[in-house]
Amino acid sequence: MSDYGRLATFTAGGKTRFGLITDGGAVDLSAHDGGRWQDLQDVVRAGDLRRAVDAAAGRTPDFGLDDICYQIPLQAPQKIICVGVNYPDRNEEYKDNKAAPANPSLFVRFPGSFTGHDRPLVRPQESEQLDYEGELALVIGKAGRRIAETDALSHVAAVTLCNEGTLRDWVRHAKFNVTQGKNFDASGAMGPWIVPFVDEAQIADIGLTTRVNGEVRQQDRTGRMIFSFRKLINYISTFTTLAPGDIIVTGTPTGAGARLDPPVWLKPGDEITVEAEGIGLLRNGVVAEDM
Amino acid sequence: MSDYGRLATFTAGGKTRFGLITDGGAVDLSAHDGGRWQDLQDVVRAGDLRRAVDAAAGRTPDFGLDDICYQIPLQAPQKIICVGVNYPDRNEEYKDNKAAPANPSLFVRFPGSFTGHDRPLVRPQESEQLDYEGELALVIGKAGRRIAETDALSHVAAVTLCNEGTLRDWVRHAKFNVTQGKNFDASGAMGPWIVPFVDEAQIADIGLTTRVNGEVRQQDRTGRMIFSFRKLINYISTFTTLAPGDIIVTGTPTGAGARLDPPVWLKPGDEITVEAEGIGLLRNGVVAEDM
Repeated sequence: MSDYGRLATFTAGGKTRFGLITDGGAVDLSAHDGGRWQDLQDVVRAGDLRRAVDAAAGRTPDFGLDDICYQIPLQAPQKIICVGVNYPDRNEEYKDNKAAPANPSLFVRFPGSFTGHDRPLVRPQESEQLDYEGELALVIGKAGRRIAETDALSHVAAVTLCNEGTLRDWVRHAKFNVTQGKNFDASGAMGPWIVPFVDEAQIADIGLTTRVNGEVRQQDRTGRMIFSFRKLINYISTFTTLAPGDIIVTGTPTGAGARLDPPVWLKPGDEITVEAEGIGLLRNGVVAEDM
Repeated sequence: MSDYGRLATFTAGGKTRFGLITDGGAVDLSAHDGGRWQDLQDVVRAGDLRRAVDAAAGRTPDFGLDDICYQIPLQAPQKIICVGVNYPDRNEEYKDNKAAPANPSLFVRFPGSFTGHDRPLVRPQESEQLDYEGELALVIGKAGRRIAETDALSHVAAVTLCNEGTLRDWVRHAKFNVTQGKNFDASGAMGPWIVPFVDEAQIADIGLTTRVNGEVRQQDRTGRMIFSFRKLINYISTFTTLAPGDIIVTGTPTGAGARLDPPVWLKPGDEITVEAEGIGLLRNGVVAEDM
């Protein structure tokens, strides 16, 4: 696990709190220093991630890990910008690079489409085609527009994991735009925590693995991404000013259930994990909404 | 102009305020009743639009109309969900209705992609293909999921106007999803104000007209919309819980500059107006960012 600290938002004792997750439990930072920070978003906005980790270090945990319920780390990001498939197909050869797209495909998810770690993804009444997509997500820490690739990582505050759960038939409801199939309430997950971004080596070429009931379904390394982290920040900030707390969900490797022949959808009782070296493991079950 | 009141967010005297716009000026409600409402979003959230209009009625305006600078009415909606072209092509016949799409195409804009009334749209350095799209927008007042069409309008708090400015080459940057071409900072506009929604007749079949330099470019009636206001609320709330302050931008008539032969893009110095009966008139110039 990371040495940089794991900052989470969670409910415990009937309240939503945030703090440091350690192997021994959760250190509550909600009331630290007279309520210096309102929430984890506030910590990011203030550029205080390191300070928050330090404030909790060495303290006796306030809650056991069994006594907290994880929420998505940042509750109300201004923007959650998601990138379409962003790893080359292992079964296809890009000999002349012609098949690679010129620009990333981008869509938006709302915070309500995600649930926290260890809480079930919700398969809605309207579709049985719930699918997983394991991804790494960047939390922006410093505002910027037209950010140069060379400078891009200085705008990253933290890293987290995402299961970008998708209703496959609903992404094809309209000719363009996947909005509806990507935004069913609680159809995806984010977390369990954010890890402060300190060093490019944390994300430059790490393994990313998605498993369903223990079986590896997606596995790749971030060093193989079609559009690099730097490129994504540069491209997205060309049109929109990135702000502290904005999240870029950086795209999934091949191997989603839709790509299997025949397709295999998630069903109630399944367990999906998304794991990345040094970041953590995001685990979710599945429930059918109408059960 | 509407009898239901026009509530706007504006800067005046170096501060961002909100209040009632009358023919004689702006009545500031920012400090009303000891700061009962933080901003216009707060008024919507509290279900207090009528109360806000009443609180300002009869008061002497605090600012002249020349002394205020309009901002987008709600500064930070949780969701701005936009609908693709939503009026039939006048030059095409839908005799058997087969050509009509089964579901609306939906995409998302961020608040920063809009500017206020009487402020210029920004044509970015990256593209000369800035185009207009005049639309009516609904402000949600009451939360809901899977809202029935029969009940849909009870979830609407207010109505406003939108120029859903678009960079045409950037909407085609990727195979799917128009996100980037729809989200250049200040490429669109919203406002000038929101008008409380009281009666279905306010929106059921009203004229919507977009002019460029006085020339009519888009003109249609809401009664001809492919997906009705009721249907949009029903469909969108199928996947996402609508919340107070969310905005649905309901789609544009045919006649955008991209449809002209050859296409005609907006250029610095142009003036675009979007006007709807009983709602108002949204007017914006155009500046080139690199000038």
